[in-house]
Amino acid sequence: MPKPVSIILDWGTSSLRAALVSETGETLDSRDTTSGGIQFVKDGAFEAALMDTVGAWFAAHGPLPVLASGMITSRNGWVEVPYVDAPAGLAELAAGTKQLTLQNGAVITFLPGMRDPAAKPFPDVMRGEETQIVGFGLDKDRTLVLPGTHSKWARVEGGRIAGFQTYATGEIFALLTKHSFIAKALEPVAGAEPVWSAFDRGAEFAASDERAADALLSAVFSARTGVLASMLKAEDIGDYVSGLVIGSEFRQARATGWFSPGDAIGIVGNNVLSSRYGRIAPLFDLTVEPSPPDAAKRGVQLIAGQLYK
Amino acid sequence: MPKPVSIILDWGTSSLRAALVSETGETLDSRDTTSGGIQFVKDGAFEAALMDTVGAWFAAHGPLPVLASGMITSRNGWVEVPYVDAPAGLAELAAGTKQLTLQNGAVITFLPGMRDPAAKPFPDVMRGEETQIVGFGLDKDRTLVLPGTHSKWARVEGGRIAGFQTYATGEIFALLTKHSFIAKALEPVAGAEPVWSAFDRGAEFAASDERAADALLSAVFSARTGVLASMLKAEDIGDYVSGLVIGSEFRQARATGWFSPGDAIGIVGNNVLSSRYGRIAPLFDLTVEPSPPDAAKRGVQLIAGQLYK
Repeated sequence: MPKPVSIILDWGTSSLRAALVSETGETLDSRDTTSGGIQFVKDGAFEAALMDTVGAWFAAHGPLPVLASGMITSRNGWVEVPYVDAPAGLAELAAGTKQLTLQNGAVITFLPGMRDPAAKPFPDVMRGEETQIVGFGLDKDRTLVLPGTHSKWARVEGGRIAGFQTYATGEIFALLTKHSFIAKALEPVAGAEPVWSAFDRGAEFAASDERAADALLSAVFSARTGVLASMLKAEDIGDYVSGLVIGSEFRQARATGWFSPGDAIGIVGNNVLSSRYGRIAPLFDLTVEPSPPDAAKRGVQLIAGQLYK
Repeated sequence: MPKPVSIILDWGTSSLRAALVSETGETLDSRDTTSGGIQFVKDGAFEAALMDTVGAWFAAHGPLPVLASGMITSRNGWVEVPYVDAPAGLAELAAGTKQLTLQNGAVITFLPGMRDPAAKPFPDVMRGEETQIVGFGLDKDRTLVLPGTHSKWARVEGGRIAGFQTYATGEIFALLTKHSFIAKALEPVAGAEPVWSAFDRGAEFAASDERAADALLSAVFSARTGVLASMLKAEDIGDYVSGLVIGSEFRQARATGWFSPGDAIGIVGNNVLSSRYGRIAPLFDLTVEPSPPDAAKRGVQLIAGQLYK
């Protein structure tokens, strides 16, 4: 087995995920525990929770450096790490870390989140996504989108993260399909596969030249009028709304200046949600650069690499 | 007492509201009952429910004509009345009514809703708002907005309702403030009065020249970042979001072509919600024409007047 050189933690509110990593970035072993999630740790006993999860790795390999990101660095976590302001690259992110020495002598490094003071109407924030952006690559000027409940559009320029903006698209989708007039009419899809024809229909309207496509507050009502007009089936509604809101995110990102037709953008991640984003990109005349696997882990290693240079 | 000439019903899913009306439109008596709401009427016993509510009026004044609008004319109601297509004026709406003779010999007239086949991406519908628009007045070309859970923007041209569009703004506001990340942070306002300074802040951003104001999916996230940046207080959040989403409705209605800066628009209704709309209009360089009281009742009488000419 290659020699382990560090332990990387993705430590969030509901779970603690740990990886034992080699110099080349290979994951040699991993743990994924919900009991370590911040909300389940009592009285600030974070070190004990960490030892429960990775104590065996320390015993076998000595006091390896630990690199932690996620909500563990927030006000409700172990060590609050202030946001680093955009624009920021490797040097600024590394300078924003905080360190603590564990009882066994291992040093744990907490990575900072980022703040964009130029965002409107208030400074925007992220915690974790900046690490994925670094892992995707700061080598080239480009726009990246990070799909999620609160997705991020970010701009890389001159080797730094120049700015970013949060879109609450995933949350709006969940609200509409779980709690609104849409929820009552919607029928879940039988198979595992999305109804892509319905998804495309929503996305194509959002990408169209119709002026009404600028009116998302109105367009969501089409999930009802489409059914009334017998143009949407109950089992189409969920994916139709998905295409409509993600398509509207692209439309609004274009209006806000994150891309122009003809650009190449990066979509960070390789999950079901990123495949939906990838399907919409061509409707806005965008090409997609492939995402490296494990962008988050790569990003942590690159930031930490600055500390040990 | 002036002589009663008709009974006007606003008969919805959750309540039945009845008015005994004189020739000049004066309300001589009224009933408001939840037990008559469509969802509470069993086995289609609508006539019995009606007699429970207004039987005494028939007994006192004879078989007066009854005029009914609301969800009672929908698929789940007593008599389904097909939508009348836009453009439509008094003649078309009157021609779209359906009549039924009650056991006591009184004739009940059910008013139609309207459909806009030109709406994108699917034909839009309304049921009840067209009556309010008629009551506001078809005498002059203008744009009207009807605030509500599903508000309507409508255009009156050449004495007819030329087209309309639904905005699910009230519903999106309720979803955000009851079920989203915003709900967790929000504290209710102590007094009865809205926090107008917070409302204005949201509305002013929506009306601003900032490109980010075109990105509502992002702007809603400002309810969180404003608190993180200590620029919004917990008790400001609700009214801030209200200003932001209603302001965004105006912004999107402008993008869709419902008005241009400098126009005069009508805001139908005289409730708390219409005062919020009225406060935003000047931010978009709009003047507001006052709404007549009881636009809905006036509209019903004008449409019914066509039948008895």
